[in-house]
Amino acid sequence: AKKSTPTLKPLEPPPADHRIIGVQRELFTTSKYSPGSAIFLPNGTKIFNRLTNFLRSQYEHYGFQEVISPTIYKKSLWEKSGHWENYAEDMYSVSGHGAEGKKEDRQVGEDEEYGLKPMNCPGHCLIFASKKRSYRDLPIRYADFSPLHRNELTGALSGLTRGRRFHQDDGHIFCRPSQIRDEISKSLDFVRQAYGVLGLGSYRLALSTRPADHFIGTIAEWDNAEAALRESLNSTQLPWTLNEGDGAFYGPKIDIILKDSDGKEHQTATIQLDFQLPKRFELEYQAPAPELEQRGMTTNDSELLAVEGSVTPVMIHRAVLGSVERMMALMIERYDTSWPFWLNPNQVVIVTLNDTPELVEYALKVKKTIQSADNRTTAGFPYSNLPQVNGLSVAIDNNPEPLKKKIADAKSKKFGIIVVVGNKNIDQQNINVDFAGLSKSQYDVANHPILQTWLEGQSKPK
Amino acid sequence: AKKSTPTLKPLEPPPADHRIIGVQRELFTTSKYSPGSAIFLPNGTKIFNRLTNFLRSQYEHYGFQEVISPTIYKKSLWEKSGHWENYAEDMYSVSGHGAEGKKEDRQVGEDEEYGLKPMNCPGHCLIFASKKRSYRDLPIRYADFSPLHRNELTGALSGLTRGRRFHQDDGHIFCRPSQIRDEISKSLDFVRQAYGVLGLGSYRLALSTRPADHFIGTIAEWDNAEAALRESLNSTQLPWTLNEGDGAFYGPKIDIILKDSDGKEHQTATIQLDFQLPKRFELEYQAPAPELEQRGMTTNDSELLAVEGSVTPVMIHRAVLGSVERMMALMIERYDTSWPFWLNPNQVVIVTLNDTPELVEYALKVKKTIQSADNRTTAGFPYSNLPQVNGLSVAIDNNPEPLKKKIADAKSKKFGIIVVVGNKNIDQQNINVDFAGLSKSQYDVANHPILQTWLEGQSKPK
Ligand SMILES: [Zn+2]
Ligand SMILES: [Zn+2]
Repeated sequence: AKKSTPTLKPLEPPPADHRIIGVQRELFTTSKYSPGSAIFLPNGTKIFNRLTNFLRSQYEHYGFQEVISPTIYKKSLWEKSGHWENYAEDMYSVSGHGAEGKKEDRQVGEDEEYGLKPMNCPGHCLIFASKKRSYRDLPIRYADFSPLHRNELTGALSGLTRGRRFHQDDGHIFCRPSQIRDEISKSLDFVRQAYGVLGLGSYRLALSTRPADHFIGTIAEWDNAEAALRESLNSTQLPWTLNEGDGAFYGPKIDIILKDSDGKEHQTATIQLDFQLPKRFELEYQAPAPELEQRGMTTNDSELLAVEGSVTPVMIHRAVLGSVERMMALMIERYDTSWPFWLNPNQVVIVTLNDTPELVEYALKVKKTIQSADNRTTAGFPYSNLPQVNGLSVAIDNNPEPLKKKIADAKSKKFGIIVVVGNKNIDQQNINVDFAGLSKSQYDVANHPILQTWLEGQSKPK
Repeated sequence: AKKSTPTLKPLEPPPADHRIIGVQRELFTTSKYSPGSAIFLPNGTKIFNRLTNFLRSQYEHYGFQEVISPTIYKKSLWEKSGHWENYAEDMYSVSGHGAEGKKEDRQVGEDEEYGLKPMNCPGHCLIFASKKRSYRDLPIRYADFSPLHRNELTGALSGLTRGRRFHQDDGHIFCRPSQIRDEISKSLDFVRQAYGVLGLGSYRLALSTRPADHFIGTIAEWDNAEAALRESLNSTQLPWTLNEGDGAFYGPKIDIILKDSDGKEHQTATIQLDFQLPKRFELEYQAPAPELEQRGMTTNDSELLAVEGSVTPVMIHRAVLGSVERMMALMIERYDTSWPFWLNPNQVVIVTLNDTPELVEYALKVKKTIQSADNRTTAGFPYSNLPQVNGLSVAIDNNPEPLKKKIADAKSKKFGIIVVVGNKNIDQQNINVDFAGLSKSQYDVANHPILQTWLEGQSKPK
């Protein structure tokens, strides 16, 4: 038989890989001493902080209160929460030397084994339980950015997508059964707003319902909760799919699934009802007509309303970004060299024509002016004489190298705005600005008051 | 003998105790499940975040770059750094279940024991070592707010002053030997600026020098370093004392000591030279005339300058706040009910005359107006249609209770500004403002543009 000549297909560029881009662009690095824990370099830390600060800025609107909860808890807490039994293989265990009798003066038993937290839920339950709560106080919504640890297999580790240490924009809502639908709707709205800002394209919603066999709570409770989730999903007017029987044994959930640049799906946000943990932690609040209240019902019967009693709150676990690290991986692959200006770690660079002391000093002055255009980062902060920054990241390149090379370097680093200063600019007290790094859709940014302040008299972006 | 009648002294009020105030004011709480780890409640978290954000805002000026480094490192790292030998009793050890053969598919040895980090220095050394460095890149200054853990004895635990989990405004400077004096001076200047803002009164400086017997490095190196520290101390024009021979074996240091409200001294900030860790981590940078460079000397000899070689950088550990928790303890005892406005967790409250839906809605509108007076918290953030906040914390009290009781409650919580709205205010589209909670020295705050925006047409502070 005649052999067919193989046709040569042109090589496609390899798909974007955040592990390669992230290291190339000096966003993060890794170390053999802590596999699975990303080390965020200065530029990666900028993106990380801007993402979490963006979330913080929305918390006020959505009624979340940030808390800072411990990293390690005694084994007995994880037994109470059920993690020690159900999640033990993924947890790290922590012990002091006292437990092994290695330290003098150590009291017997004081060094009970600890678990390194894989999630914040039990800690937030402790905060809820630290005070008497009334139905008037609910919903109470806690948010937490603590680092979390899960003991993933070495083979499963994959850059920022799956690590052993990661951060969540973790939140827990404690609400009345009658508030479930409202809270789910608000959470879905939060996701919609945030994902619009991050610009990662459309996402998919999936509802997972009561498992056939193994579940806690009554079927009526599940039916109510699932109905609330369905109504909330329908009111988003987005398509959603059903994973029948795929909920956790402790409650139904909604997953938000995002496609990466290759079309591969990643579960990012999640909204999860939990009937179990509040019971395990014996959480309660006081309400009139407690039996109806527990079933999510209201009444006008004054006799029933006259009696207050204890009710178990519903707990909703929810994360908008999900793992901040995983979200950053998706963004790095998506944006690589074209970050939106507000997330770009390389926002502004001031390039000097030479390295004479006068010019270097002038560059510093320009940097200060740019950064103080809006110096009210800390609300009510009255020390106007102190150097403050508006969060704009401004670099200076005063290396003794040719201007051409320095500008080429700034362009390759994808600076959003390149400012060039020479000795003439000192005389004229102005600057030359190149907006080449801003895409057309970002021109608005350059028209932002922050930049206007120092752009007065300068040429407008092309 | 005749017994003298004891004279009754009037009872003095007990000294302020942050552990009592902190719980009363709902700043933090503790749990038996994690002794020594403060759980910051929403109001405590606000203070924590404002302190760390204040530090961040100064980092730009002082040339620090924030990084986020891992929480756990393999035992082998702590052996390399010397902590496993010298600090082991204070460290927590971490292990996955794989190490004990509890998890299937676990590779042998992949679960080497880890240490929970008690400090960030080794991690920052890894970051320095992750890239080739030139003398032109130095100084490199990394900052990190990671949680740290030290296994303190139960008996030694004391609220926020001494815990097992704490955060530092930790920083490490990698510099050329010739840059030591400059870096120490800048660090002392940073301390002076920051402590001026925090308003905790005067502090004491103490220099600790080379121990008599056990030290590393040459006597010439120590003499140079100590001379640099002395010169920097003298140029502060503040008094300082000498702790002869009290330095660590790896380098001399300056401690900053603050008095609490009872006059008790607390070591807070520290600036510590380290000749050892850079050697243990084989850190290096390239420089001309490396032998002179290593001794902190410069030359014009073109023959010597023609040869580049490896030089070991000097490492400076420095913290301005020191433990954020301990600093908060001092501030809580000092300020209790009179926080400076920018740190006050209870900045503004809007009290409604009644709980009619119109008025509750108007209160929400006022809240939004106040918080959007300056909505540029995220630099260059172009989504002006999204709810953003300026960081001002604004509460609403729309409980169906008498106005008098609500105002009394707001005053007892020491709100800086109390806004009262009734239905008349809806018609007139204005508000009534009470600045009673602002002390005279804080009037400037009320004149700040943030507040002016929504105060137009309102009465000025008394
Ligand atoms: Zn959770
Ligand atoms: Zn250190």
